[in-house]
Amino acid sequence: MSQPRVYIHEVVTRDGFQMERVFIPTPAKIDLINRLSRCGFAKIEVTSFTSPKAIPMLRDAELVMGGIERVPGVVYTVLVPNLRGAERALDVGADEMNLVMSVSESHNRSNLKMGREASFEALSKVIAFAGRRVPITISLSCSFGCPMEGTVPIAEVLGWAGRFIGLGVSGITLCDTTGMAHPAQVALLAQAALTLNRSPEFEWTMHFHNTRGMGLANTLSAVQQGIVRFDSAMGGLGGCPYAPGATGNICTEDTVHMLEAMGLDTGVRLDGLLTLARELPALVGHEVPGQLIKAGRITDLHPMEHLS
Amino acid sequence: MSQPRVYIHEVVTRDGFQMERVFIPTPAKIDLINRLSRCGFAKIEVTSFTSPKAIPMLRDAELVMGGIERVPGVVYTVLVPNLRGAERALDVGADEMNLVMSVSESHNRSNLKMGREASFEALSKVIAFAGRRVPITISLSCSFGCPMEGTVPIAEVLGWAGRFIGLGVSGITLCDTTGMAHPAQVALLAQAALTLNRSPEFEWTMHFHNTRGMGLANTLSAVQQGIVRFDSAMGGLGGCPYAPGATGNICTEDTVHMLEAMGLDTGVRLDGLLTLARELPALVGHEVPGQLIKAGRITDLHPMEHLS
Repeated sequence: MSQPRVYIHEVVTRDGFQMERVFIPTPAKIDLINRLSRCGFAKIEVTSFTSPKAIPMLRDAELVMGGIERVPGVVYTVLVPNLRGAERALDVGADEMNLVMSVSESHNRSNLKMGREASFEALSKVIAFAGRRVPITISLSCSFGCPMEGTVPIAEVLGWAGRFIGLGVSGITLCDTTGMAHPAQVALLAQAALTLNRSPEFEWTMHFHNTRGMGLANTLSAVQQGIVRFDSAMGGLGGCPYAPGATGNICTEDTVHMLEAMGLDTGVRLDGLLTLARELPALVGHEVPGQLIKAGRITDLHPMEHLS
Repeated sequence: MSQPRVYIHEVVTRDGFQMERVFIPTPAKIDLINRLSRCGFAKIEVTSFTSPKAIPMLRDAELVMGGIERVPGVVYTVLVPNLRGAERALDVGADEMNLVMSVSESHNRSNLKMGREASFEALSKVIAFAGRRVPITISLSCSFGCPMEGTVPIAEVLGWAGRFIGLGVSGITLCDTTGMAHPAQVALLAQAALTLNRSPEFEWTMHFHNTRGMGLANTLSAVQQGIVRFDSAMGGLGGCPYAPGATGNICTEDTVHMLEAMGLDTGVRLDGLLTLARELPALVGHEVPGQLIKAGRITDLHPMEHLS
């Protein structure tokens, strides 16, 4: 009842699947999202309206968005890279658009083939075009460091956040794109972010990867500072191009399990989620990094004979 | 210089190897410990003086203890289950003995084939026999929960700790034997422990497993409360019998990397440790859970071409 509320954004079908090599059939995506919709997530990042050539895995964005059932209370958000993507997202009635740029000049140029100012300009046009019709959030890549440039100053991250806030976006997601964040840094950036905008309607989200094993420690650190929204991917899918074999996004079921054990209310029904998570290795064709499907919940007791 | 100091106890050759199926040759163990000795660990738990039938992997305890070089400043500790083990440990000149019992009656009966009072009685005799010759620490299994009984009350854990403190032990290790701890619980138990005994000479150690992905979050939570000693195993070796495929002890290199990134001084030279950790999969014959050997340090930068 009076438990502090945390909001989980499931990104497995976008950020998770994007890195997978074998195409996941459209009906399987739709079925998964429909079942995720009944697990109690605040948001589901369904897909991305990028070029089918750039990300073939998500070439069925319209079909997926058109095929899913919309459960009231769940925000169905989509990644949108540009104006064309925004038109496509509006055509299928996305609840929200998530635009992306990097706070690192090198990473933005590598990843988006343009400088940060050009990205800001382009995204400003998307906001001008679509911002009155749907809420828009901005994902700032490399907010906790750039794999090419290294440290990104907090002032730099918040400078870009502030410019987007000035354009009226509904939220900013601080992304640890390649898993470089550590808990002390997370605490500082969370404090700075909440100082910049403490409006209860404004959505600060943190997006961690577990690349170096610190994903849940970073989540803990953020929660301690008052961050209440997190992106995560079922199974911990979604790798990092620099770290083959390393884990991906923080694992939704592991994250929910930790937060609920701590007495926080995520709204997510872990039983239903675990059923889905156990089917994920078969769906993607390989083992996944998530621990809970191997270890069970801390409340799962074992008979004594087991050990003797 | 004025960085807060954290002390890392490397347990890979005892708790890590104990779970391995294929015998690791004595010279390989000695070589590994000799190289670990030069990495800056506060303690190395070298081996266990248990029955060779119970744990065949550690049947070479005398040979290993007799064969290693002792580096000044490193405490070479050994696990001792009973009086016979204590005699063997004294014979080879162990710096410290680590005795074990469980704070869960069911787990103690399953694991040690006797009740807790009988274990306390037996360990009291070991302390009476050896306690004037070497420092003795007590590892309390299931301090964060029992896989058979579930929750173990803090008062129960600290009751056993207090009885051993009364016998003059030099430290207590609170063990999360099957990875059931969560950060809120860790904070409470750490606070209670430091209230029970805040002497700077007394060593409270926490021993976490990453079974459910919370190992580093629990470490963070403990550090925040003032716990400065941690057991960890290189590579994250050391599984849990209830969770095949789940990760084991918290991974030393991942732990050191996080703590050092946060500005804490662990005394451990991460470069040397990473060299050893990269050889570990070949030594044990399988992949290990540690992330850092796959992902590299957060300070390892990449050229731009990598992404474009």
